[in-house]
Amino acid sequence: MATMLANKYVVVHSKNIWDADLLGAQMKMNSHLHAIILAGGSGTRFWPLSRELYPKQLLRILGDQTLIHQTLKRTLSCVPISRVFVVTNRSQADIVTLQLREWKRDIQKNIIVEPEGRNTAPAIAMAAMKLVVRDPAAVMLIVPADHVIKGTRKFAEAVNLGTKLAGDGHLVTLGVNPTAPETGYGYIKPNMRNQLEAQGALKGYRVRRFIEKPDVAKARAMLRSGGYFWNSGIFLWKASTILDELALYQPKLLRDIKKICRLQNSSAGLNDNVMKMYGRLPSMPIDTAVMEQTSKAAVVPVSFVWSDIGSWSSVGDIASKTKAGNVVNGNVVDLGSENSVLFGNHRLVATIGLKDMVLVDTPDATLVCPKSRAQDVKEVVSILKKRNARERLEHQTVFRPWGSYTTLDSGGGYKVKRLTVHPGAKLSLQRHRERQEHWVVVRGKAKVTRGEQCLELTVGQSLDIPKEMNHRIENPCSEILEIIEVQQGPYLGEDDIVRLQDMYGREVCS
Amino acid sequence: MATMLANKYVVVHSKNIWDADLLGAQMKMNSHLHAIILAGGSGTRFWPLSRELYPKQLLRILGDQTLIHQTLKRTLSCVPISRVFVVTNRSQADIVTLQLREWKRDIQKNIIVEPEGRNTAPAIAMAAMKLVVRDPAAVMLIVPADHVIKGTRKFAEAVNLGTKLAGDGHLVTLGVNPTAPETGYGYIKPNMRNQLEAQGALKGYRVRRFIEKPDVAKARAMLRSGGYFWNSGIFLWKASTILDELALYQPKLLRDIKKICRLQNSSAGLNDNVMKMYGRLPSMPIDTAVMEQTSKAAVVPVSFVWSDIGSWSSVGDIASKTKAGNVVNGNVVDLGSENSVLFGNHRLVATIGLKDMVLVDTPDATLVCPKSRAQDVKEVVSILKKRNARERLEHQTVFRPWGSYTTLDSGGGYKVKRLTVHPGAKLSLQRHRERQEHWVVVRGKAKVTRGEQCLELTVGQSLDIPKEMNHRIENPCSEILEIIEVQQGPYLGEDDIVRLQDMYGREVCS
Repeated sequence: MATMLANKYVVVHSKNIWDADLLGAQMKMNSHLHAIILAGGSGTRFWPLSRELYPKQLLRILGDQTLIHQTLKRTLSCVPISRVFVVTNRSQADIVTLQLREWKRDIQKNIIVEPEGRNTAPAIAMAAMKLVVRDPAAVMLIVPADHVIKGTRKFAEAVNLGTKLAGDGHLVTLGVNPTAPETGYGYIKPNMRNQLEAQGALKGYRVRRFIEKPDVAKARAMLRSGGYFWNSGIFLWKASTILDELALYQPKLLRDIKKICRLQNSSAGLNDNVMKMYGRLPSMPIDTAVMEQTSKAAVVPVSFVWSDIGSWSSVGDIASKTKAGNVVNGNVVDLGSENSVLFGNHRLVATIGLKDMVLVDTPDATLVCPKSRAQDVKEVVSILKKRNARERLEHQTVFRPWGSYTTLDSGGGYKVKRLTVHPGAKLSLQRHRERQEHWVVVRGKAKVTRGEQCLELTVGQSLDIPKEMNHRIENPCSEILEIIEVQQGPYLGEDDIVRLQDMYGREVCS
Repeated sequence: MATMLANKYVVVHSKNIWDADLLGAQMKMNSHLHAIILAGGSGTRFWPLSRELYPKQLLRILGDQTLIHQTLKRTLSCVPISRVFVVTNRSQADIVTLQLREWKRDIQKNIIVEPEGRNTAPAIAMAAMKLVVRDPAAVMLIVPADHVIKGTRKFAEAVNLGTKLAGDGHLVTLGVNPTAPETGYGYIKPNMRNQLEAQGALKGYRVRRFIEKPDVAKARAMLRSGGYFWNSGIFLWKASTILDELALYQPKLLRDIKKICRLQNSSAGLNDNVMKMYGRLPSMPIDTAVMEQTSKAAVVPVSFVWSDIGSWSSVGDIASKTKAGNVVNGNVVDLGSENSVLFGNHRLVATIGLKDMVLVDTPDATLVCPKSRAQDVKEVVSILKKRNARERLEHQTVFRPWGSYTTLDSGGGYKVKRLTVHPGAKLSLQRHRERQEHWVVVRGKAKVTRGEQCLELTVGQSLDIPKEMNHRIENPCSEILEIIEVQQGPYLGEDDIVRLQDMYGREVCS
């Protein structure tokens, strides 16, 4: 079972997730194929809609489903759920699990929590180490959780060919036909005379050369000359092949990963050493760690529509638009804007005559910039980081394994929140040193522990929790429970909490 | 005493305010001079910072004081408080009084509440009618509450010369040196060969011609040729003169106003007839009603800096700016914007590379447009009006004579508010048909009536008010009182209120 951890002691998951039922593998699917969905992400480029604790893959930027949900759905066209693993990091694990569980309850077993994100190479190395033990012939399909792909069938076909190539010992990347002289992507030059394999119109080639993030002149030249492809970041290889190549090109990284795995497998698995060692790993993408150095690289040029939607301006390229070329979302009143991304929500946003602009509105922060400056939101986030501004980190609504809370108001000595508790969910048994709490149920029914008492509160009923008194909220019903909480005291930080029991594996005091 | 009315029965004030103490007139001031501050306003052009119930004059657009506060201060350099009258309309009376009272408690006696705004001509006619009875030689200084003037001394000098001319039977307007080919103002051509009076460098002339809102070509031509002035909307005349001219040019309006005054003076003063008659008056500015037709018009060209800040773009002309030419207010993180108005508040706003743009952010609505389209916010407001959107009418925080309330949250069957009650203030004794209320005191101390009980609540204490139970909140202390109120019920509109007693003259049930 995966642990959803927001506290101090967190582990890279070890044995248990690999016990997942492999019998579910469907007949047509390659029985050695496993998928690794990479769901880290810093939440920077889509600020203020994304936050450090709520990155891009969790957003509904396009359509009703979040990007990670779309990714999982797409992946399941190639790999059964029992062999799909989601790698995320500690600070995002709760919300990733929450989102995926709503749709596929089984996925909860297959979520791998890194102590912290160290880019793709360490995560992939770790996954390969574990996979190869279970299935020496295991093939890994690596998919980032926050890409947009239109054409699931074409995706599955490419994966199919890629799997074949991977089985033959190649390190395969899916190559995307470039449509613009992008400088943010890596480019791949296949060796067209060295075709490895073909399935229908799809072909696989050896890679002649990787060109990492070129300048605009070079990008234009490659676009003009043709025969170059964008590196999509979607990879296929055997676990054993990537381990061999890591041994060759990143021997130290591999040694460290092996140590971490040994530590985890020993009885001292859940300890600070794992945390520390993981934190010392280099933050390194698999592209530079292996792909640009290996002689085994192959590419399958694909024909599906792909975008890594790397900035707000790229939303304009991929989302559906009004006649005037605007992407409009939420409560927006617009007069005559053109080619703009107008991304609101419940709050009212009025725009007049914007051209090629980006406007993103959230309950607690708004961004406005020309499309051409959309990447510079990174600088805004780094300013906010320096100021230690809450708005870089989390939303006004913060997700927890039991539901969420929204801060409605705060002033000298008090804070007002709305708690939303999922059916069947239960907050931890806890107490606070500095604050008293007052609850009013506004929806559903609450089962409440208050010291030694056990009470039921229905809509309109209220209760005081004095400081230092143990308490717990539970939603025993099938309807959502909503509570207005008024906190009062000299200190109202989230860290004033003594947890005594928790059903989500969060740290408790002994 | 002025009545602050937000309810059905409202009157144009009659006798009592004119009993104001005239003895306070200072020696150097002309003892016949009275000031009428026109404080209506539709709240359209500065949306979303202004709202229909919170118009421009109430905003702190420039500096720490609101525009009406600045106007009152400036007016007091010419006229003693006892002879300063503020005309506002019913829906804005509470907040206008609240604001002015904080600074000058005496002003409360001199607030004239119109049932509804009908532009300047009816308000001025009514004021003149009443003034001439008290002082047949009364001179009226008419000042809009929402203009910006830099140079109070120069203003006072101009008023001084204007008063002299008014005393001689002229209808005087202060003329502003035009600095741009504005198409939104009236222009005045003085007869330079017909100088009426001079005081130092200041001169008064007969008006040769009024040019109402010219097209841009005409405006440019006037700017080039020189010798034209903008009509500032600041007027001086004897009450008797303006009444004579109204009799000549607007006889029907004057007859109706006389009827309304008679009705008010009769015992049936406070009735529906006054409301109805006022509502039927034409909405007419004094400029077109009289000034453009009279042969008695005179102009005093002035040299102080003046702006009617008619749109968000004009804020850029008058407010202090950063080196890059931005007007910045509130919690704004900006990267490289230029010549823009970035007007935020507590919420975080991030702007990157804006040029000649306007961004106005409020807790519940945001506006973004190029400066050149700033006037079109009127269209946005009219769209909101059609949709019956709350955001055109009022802010998330709504002001009441006793303080204010802020809506923090609302959902199915509940609403959460923060009530802020001024020291010594008292909400009405009231009850609700459809909702129960739950209060938690988070600041100060409350004296509460609950049915037959009288209770005191301190910080952290809470109370239920069932529906149909009479209740009242009072702040007996010298500190602000803040209460979190959770309302619950099938209907939560503001109009579900039965008032039984009110200290602010609001309608109560018998």
